[in-house]
Amino acid sequence: MYTLGIDYGTNSVRALVVRCADGAELGSSTVNYPSGSQGILLDPRDHHLARQHPADYLFGLEKSVRLALAAAKKTRGFDAKKVIGLGVDTTGSSPIPVDAHNVPLASSKKWAKNLHAQCWLWKDHTSWREAAEITQLAAQHRPQFIAKCGNTYSSEWFWSKLWHCRTVAPKVFAAAHSWVELCDWVPSVLAGITDPTQIKRGICAAGHKSLYSDDWAGLPDKEFLALLDPALAELRDRLYTKAYDATESAGALTAEWAKKLGLPAGIPIAIGEFDVHYGAIGCGVAEGTLVKVIGTSTCDCGVVSASKSVPDIPGICGIVPGAILPGFYGLEAGQSAVGDIFKWWVELVCEGNAARHARLTQEVAKRKPGASGLLALDWQNGNRTILVDPLLTGVIIGCTLHTTQAEIYRALIEATAFGARAIIERFKEYGVPIDRVVCAGGIAEKNPLLMQIYADVTGCTMLVSGSSQACALGSAISAAVLAGAHPDFPTAQRKMTSLKKVAFKPKPDAQKIYNQLYALYRQVHDSFGGLNKSADLSRVMKDLLALK
Amino acid sequence: MYTLGIDYGTNSVRALVVRCADGAELGSSTVNYPSGSQGILLDPRDHHLARQHPADYLFGLEKSVRLALAAAKKTRGFDAKKVIGLGVDTTGSSPIPVDAHNVPLASSKKWAKNLHAQCWLWKDHTSWREAAEITQLAAQHRPQFIAKCGNTYSSEWFWSKLWHCRTVAPKVFAAAHSWVELCDWVPSVLAGITDPTQIKRGICAAGHKSLYSDDWAGLPDKEFLALLDPALAELRDRLYTKAYDATESAGALTAEWAKKLGLPAGIPIAIGEFDVHYGAIGCGVAEGTLVKVIGTSTCDCGVVSASKSVPDIPGICGIVPGAILPGFYGLEAGQSAVGDIFKWWVELVCEGNAARHARLTQEVAKRKPGASGLLALDWQNGNRTILVDPLLTGVIIGCTLHTTQAEIYRALIEATAFGARAIIERFKEYGVPIDRVVCAGGIAEKNPLLMQIYADVTGCTMLVSGSSQACALGSAISAAVLAGAHPDFPTAQRKMTSLKKVAFKPKPDAQKIYNQLYALYRQVHDSFGGLNKSADLSRVMKDLLALK
Repeated sequence: MYTLGIDYGTNSVRALVVRCADGAELGSSTVNYPSGSQGILLDPRDHHLARQHPADYLFGLEKSVRLALAAAKKTRGFDAKKVIGLGVDTTGSSPIPVDAHNVPLASSKKWAKNLHAQCWLWKDHTSWREAAEITQLAAQHRPQFIAKCGNTYSSEWFWSKLWHCRTVAPKVFAAAHSWVELCDWVPSVLAGITDPTQIKRGICAAGHKSLYSDDWAGLPDKEFLALLDPALAELRDRLYTKAYDATESAGALTAEWAKKLGLPAGIPIAIGEFDVHYGAIGCGVAEGTLVKVIGTSTCDCGVVSASKSVPDIPGICGIVPGAILPGFYGLEAGQSAVGDIFKWWVELVCEGNAARHARLTQEVAKRKPGASGLLALDWQNGNRTILVDPLLTGVIIGCTLHTTQAEIYRALIEATAFGARAIIERFKEYGVPIDRVVCAGGIAEKNPLLMQIYADVTGCTMLVSGSSQACALGSAISAAVLAGAHPDFPTAQRKMTSLKKVAFKPKPDAQKIYNQLYALYRQVHDSFGGLNKSADLSRVMKDLLALK
Repeated sequence: MYTLGIDYGTNSVRALVVRCADGAELGSSTVNYPSGSQGILLDPRDHHLARQHPADYLFGLEKSVRLALAAAKKTRGFDAKKVIGLGVDTTGSSPIPVDAHNVPLASSKKWAKNLHAQCWLWKDHTSWREAAEITQLAAQHRPQFIAKCGNTYSSEWFWSKLWHCRTVAPKVFAAAHSWVELCDWVPSVLAGITDPTQIKRGICAAGHKSLYSDDWAGLPDKEFLALLDPALAELRDRLYTKAYDATESAGALTAEWAKKLGLPAGIPIAIGEFDVHYGAIGCGVAEGTLVKVIGTSTCDCGVVSASKSVPDIPGICGIVPGAILPGFYGLEAGQSAVGDIFKWWVELVCEGNAARHARLTQEVAKRKPGASGLLALDWQNGNRTILVDPLLTGVIIGCTLHTTQAEIYRALIEATAFGARAIIERFKEYGVPIDRVVCAGGIAEKNPLLMQIYADVTGCTMLVSGSSQACALGSAISAAVLAGAHPDFPTAQRKMTSLKKVAFKPKPDAQKIYNQLYALYRQVHDSFGGLNKSADLSRVMKDLLALK
């Protein structure tokens, strides 16, 4: 028996065929989104804007599944008829405006070219003003709404984006019958749901991005939404009243889509979750295990048994029951840019090609921590955790006339490691245990220098997920549990996930220096980040030179 | 009648033949120092170290003068016999350890390869610890010593360097009979002085770098020097007791050197001054006029009539009567790196060639101030004025994933402009009038973008010296006055100096934005620089984004 995991990333979609018995990956494929710049629609006048054409998702869906199945067929015994379920994970919050038939506005001729009628990609930050206003209104009128997401509502999230659309493109907003998160929309299409209010929405997106909670009546009440804009209150009835964890099915595969994809009709479709949430499952997340998916940005996921109480944790993106594993609180944190920062430095600023990364890594791999006298802040795309502020920017401190391109490259890696440590420390401060860290994503697999720096900076042993497609694997695991191949998630994870043999252990000498550098990082971080409004930074440069 | 100006820069020496009647430049030549990296001896283990081989100075002297005279001979009426005097200016503080016969230690086989036996180039910062200690000891025991140099003694200066040599290379120190500033040593060689205590030392170097003043008994007293090291107290007797302004002659050209250079024997040699001091004269310095020599670093010079009283100005490098023009206080300030910062960014970090500067300038020349959202600190080589701290380092703030190489290039230019404004404001705060700014140096002539930014940032019209060899011209003017071609310096300056036709006037729109950016610069400057030890930097990044 097999299941299929479909993982929608920022630039491409992957499909993965998995054997339920042991998690063996029989076939996979990646299809790039055809539109825009690397799949993203941009606005040269506003670097905050990032949209995606919904048609790209369906194009990639059909192509990637067919390719993955074709690859799997090379394995003896595999037959597409033995696929018993499929799961979908996507980026988010990536809401799509749809009409009354669950068809994206962008699919109609009228709106096809309008950037506001597209999917609003997770990393779109155009709605930073709205986010700040929602934060303020919630703090004043419904503090409970934001207590679980670090008391700050983000510009990357559902209501900020919808409100911004209403403000800058009222005609698009008026034309939208409803808005659907990408992770809910793809399953709904596969299940043939043609009424957006009937979509089985996942609690992952709802709880983390849309202020949904069973503690109040689901989505924010109309009275509160009307404080933002009456049009949002009016929209509420055309969204949803109940969101589900992964014990529920999003529907069954229609005959039409079964034919398009080459799969059995009627097989169950797992509830949609965000990529890193299913990725956490694919990495073997459990209480005490932090999963880091390190890519263009980083997401950190942990779980705490729903039988315990979890305090509100300032700056953490969300604490949502059932968001990752049924029966557990799902905790999410993250860094807005990681791989993107290295790419920015090497390819945009230094005008190097992709191969330059390897040369720079080699140049600084053997340098001792602190040897460059540099300290950087990893805020080139704002700070998600623990400051939750998209209007922060990157900093490089300690440049001399001898500072090299490679030294700054390493300082940027270290900056992201300090950002990672700030997250781990914040979890621990609030009683969330972290005994092990499992990493996934291209960078975790391919960059041993970065992994060792992360171990040295955080003091945690860095493990690496056995699957290089952890998100798709997690989706496939969810489908396997749903289809009855395993009795529950822990059993399915035990059977279907693994770790790579390599483990990066902290080196005490490096740890000592990084502890000092981290203290300096926090001084600068807290000052520019607003945690300390009477900072004494007069020693920072001198301490950096002393470490050097 | 003609005089000759000889200008020792950081990487090369220039000779210039000037007509006394009108300042016409008849012939010039530049000779690079043959040793080390671009004429500088470096230590790969310590980027603070910068030395120079004294033999390079004599090699360059002979070659440059002969070439300049050869060039001048192409002008009808010129004859080397009509050269009536010569002047020398050099970098500084650049002290040379010499033996009892005024021969540099480095000229002996024993010390030829020893880095500590060479000339300690102005930009050598190895003695930063000693500088801090001298500052502290002076503050405690002789506050008057440092009151005129901003209450801070620099690592670039005479006593710091000598003390550092005594500490790290005691054998070199013991072998040195005396130490002579480069600007005094070259004239002394030309004048055939073979006893270092008989050298006519200039008050420019003595007053600005060696704590010499007529207010006390010349150099610091032995009791104070013994607090540093008894060996320094013991050395005092082998230095000098009196220093002179440019009304005095350093001596007469020996027959031997006259022959080597192709000049008349016995002509007077002007007292030696630092390059920018004679450069200020070559730019027409007068009360109310600030002269900026913009090159790898920047020096700022002003004068105030000796009949007035000048208060102590914190952070200004020096206030010395007669240091520039006889009868005036000479005021000096500066920035430790300017052109060096652009070179560092383009050539070392971005690995571009020298032509890249032009491309980057073109890319950002038409951008509006503030458009990049970037703010930088110009401290890649420490800060000379107004913080007087070599242990400060460069900073770049405001990086996003869209920040380009060219935008950072412009931000670095702006950073040096903010540094320039901080100096001008400091002068004005203490009652030194600045009505006009005359710039000299390669950057002032070749970079109209930078000059316009300086005008917009400082609010001053930027004028450009008519001579592109202002330092050598100033030396030649000093020689002309000394030889009697003109009755005094103001007359000689009126006749022999000029301005280029171009003038960069501040544009009100740009000024408005730069006023805001400068306020942010000062926030960050004062915080990292230690002027404000309870800084609130939480708005900096947001204000930068708002300006953008």
